[in-house]
Amino acid sequence: MSRANAVIAHGGGPTAVINASLAGLASQCRSEAFFRSLLGAHFGLEGLLRGEFADLLSVDANEIHAIEQTPGSAIGSSRRKLEERDLEQILAIFRAREVRAFFYTGGNGSMATALRVHQYARSAGYELSVIGIPKTIDNDLCVTDHTPGYGSTARFFAHAARDAGEDNRSLPSPICVLETLGRNAGWIVAATALARRDEDDAPHLIYLPERRLSLARIAEDTRRMCSRWGRCFIAVCEGQLDENGQPFGADVDRPDVPQHRLATNLGYTLARLLTETTGLRARAEKPGIVGRCCGPFTSETDRREAFECGMAAARAAAGGESGVMVALRRESTVPYFTTTFLTRLESVALTERLFPEEWITAESNDVAAGFLEWVQPLAGKTANYPRIRF
Amino acid sequence: MSRANAVIAHGGGPTAVINASLAGLASQCRSEAFFRSLLGAHFGLEGLLRGEFADLLSVDANEIHAIEQTPGSAIGSSRRKLEERDLEQILAIFRAREVRAFFYTGGNGSMATALRVHQYARSAGYELSVIGIPKTIDNDLCVTDHTPGYGSTARFFAHAARDAGEDNRSLPSPICVLETLGRNAGWIVAATALARRDEDDAPHLIYLPERRLSLARIAEDTRRMCSRWGRCFIAVCEGQLDENGQPFGADVDRPDVPQHRLATNLGYTLARLLTETTGLRARAEKPGIVGRCCGPFTSETDRREAFECGMAAARAAAGGESGVMVALRRESTVPYFTTTFLTRLESVALTERLFPEEWITAESNDVAAGFLEWVQPLAGKTANYPRIRF
Repeated sequence: MSRANAVIAHGGGPTAVINASLAGLASQCRSEAFFRSLLGAHFGLEGLLRGEFADLLSVDANEIHAIEQTPGSAIGSSRRKLEERDLEQILAIFRAREVRAFFYTGGNGSMATALRVHQYARSAGYELSVIGIPKTIDNDLCVTDHTPGYGSTARFFAHAARDAGEDNRSLPSPICVLETLGRNAGWIVAATALARRDEDDAPHLIYLPERRLSLARIAEDTRRMCSRWGRCFIAVCEGQLDENGQPFGADVDRPDVPQHRLATNLGYTLARLLTETTGLRARAEKPGIVGRCCGPFTSETDRREAFECGMAAARAAAGGESGVMVALRRESTVPYFTTTFLTRLESVALTERLFPEEWITAESNDVAAGFLEWVQPLAGKTANYPRIRF
Repeated sequence: MSRANAVIAHGGGPTAVINASLAGLASQCRSEAFFRSLLGAHFGLEGLLRGEFADLLSVDANEIHAIEQTPGSAIGSSRRKLEERDLEQILAIFRAREVRAFFYTGGNGSMATALRVHQYARSAGYELSVIGIPKTIDNDLCVTDHTPGYGSTARFFAHAARDAGEDNRSLPSPICVLETLGRNAGWIVAATALARRDEDDAPHLIYLPERRLSLARIAEDTRRMCSRWGRCFIAVCEGQLDENGQPFGADVDRPDVPQHRLATNLGYTLARLLTETTGLRARAEKPGIVGRCCGPFTSETDRREAFECGMAAARAAAGGESGVMVALRRESTVPYFTTTFLTRLESVALTERLFPEEWITAESNDVAAGFLEWVQPLAGKTANYPRIRF
């Protein structure tokens, strides 16, 4: 088979390690005879539809290595939805540039897009390898053990809970609410449990958006922790809902309605309501996107796996696969060891893996020990602080 | 002179390096023949008034070294205000324990407290060395070139602006507001300027609370940046006020009224108002206290200087000084080099050093180059990211 041009595009929010997947892909493409070029689309589908590309195989290997270490998306990304007429245009661009492989890095929405491109090319009789590369901080992709990008964000928020928790211990204030990323999946907020060593360590309460909870219930939990520890540190996910499926009156993100994407304030709203309900002072912090792209908190495991997913995608395309996504299989937790495999795009497109019920405690305000064992190798260790004993 | 017992207490919010000052003090006390003990008061004035102490000279040197590297206050802190009757009780405790040196680490409010203790002991004819150790992330202490704790928080927010700025570049959204710490002083928000290398790097606008600005003016700046760069990243201080001296309708911290200390939302409020005014979508992030106690962003210079201030305090007490605070003198910026000196508590108590007018640009939306040269050695370098060129 003659050598082929390939295109890589990113979909959705950047992560701390999406560039590592890009670097893994570029490295492997360089060593596979199959590839003549690897065209990075500038700003995802936007650049793809405009034909705005940079050939990553002509970028210096040292620069690719530097990009591998860097959060954010070096080629940009986009939340643009794929229109029917876009498919025709994409195929026209692929034909004109003799593109025979299309890599698309993203979450379940992006995998649905990749699937449509795969099906459209097939129905048009155009030979094209479409390979998905998993990426989402929210960790809500099915089939794969976990998703590149998750471990680093988990690591950030575990440390944020530890550090803000130590601050709260040093200068006790009754209530501190830490709002995490994660949308409607509890994977990220759950990882704040890694901050704990001693019984009184933060967070004292962890709410999973998979369980809807009334303000009265949260206030009761909070009061109990305050009388036990003199303070209460709460980790809550940006997508937490009350018993009526409403966000406690907060403004929330509406990813389904792009023009509604606005400043959100769930943690703040909850803090205000808790002060009103309990009479106790509360503050709220929301690192937001600072938590999904923070260099020093990048998990080494996450970065390595992201790189390997990129490499596996290149091998899959060179091997003639199409309509598949690279996934991670956990071979062993101790010692930690994963391999990659391929799964059909149908198995991951538009489906969502929420936080498992069996890892939520009966009281709906904490995570089970099984989760901690599962997540520890992904996020790495959270060192605890020495303390003077009085 | 016979050997003396000493007390150390912390006042106000913890920082990334207040423990380094504690470690420097403990190390130097250990090597000065003057000290028999160094009693750490648990939770600041609270522990001091309860007589709840731990002797830091009996803590293993390795543990002191571990604490030196740790954010948060290992002995706790307090925002308790000193009542008149507290002075009598403090002196009674000092007499009972033969305490001849009192170290108090904090900002301008804490230095006023230290001054009162100094004056009370003197008027009672009780021989006591009262030595202030400077500490505040807000950097608003007078006389000293800068304050331990500031450099690390400046470093955190410079990196937060860089990382969230790269995220915003990767997936452009019109407006992103980063709310920083700093109360009514612009030192921290100003340091986000360290995030920049290229002309289009975040932040595109930096507002200093020393300049009151109307929403109309901020909206006009934002529109201009959006038409120039396709996006606008705004760094704003939690204490920013509008042209009427009001916080744009936001809930703000009221340090003067402790029971009013509640969740604050200036950045969020500004983001919502900017969306209403410009029609452009905006998001807002507020790392809050995560930014004042974040291990990996601790500035090495800050930690070293905090340690040296602690050492200088021990030497001052052993040398018979009282009613003074340790301060930093910048001997040279390139190469960077500081020394410590002593200043009267009267010169720093309850006075406030705001961000200098000459370092605010004429448009009131950025900082001057002179500030960057000044702050760089304190916060350390902010590495910029490699980028694919299209």
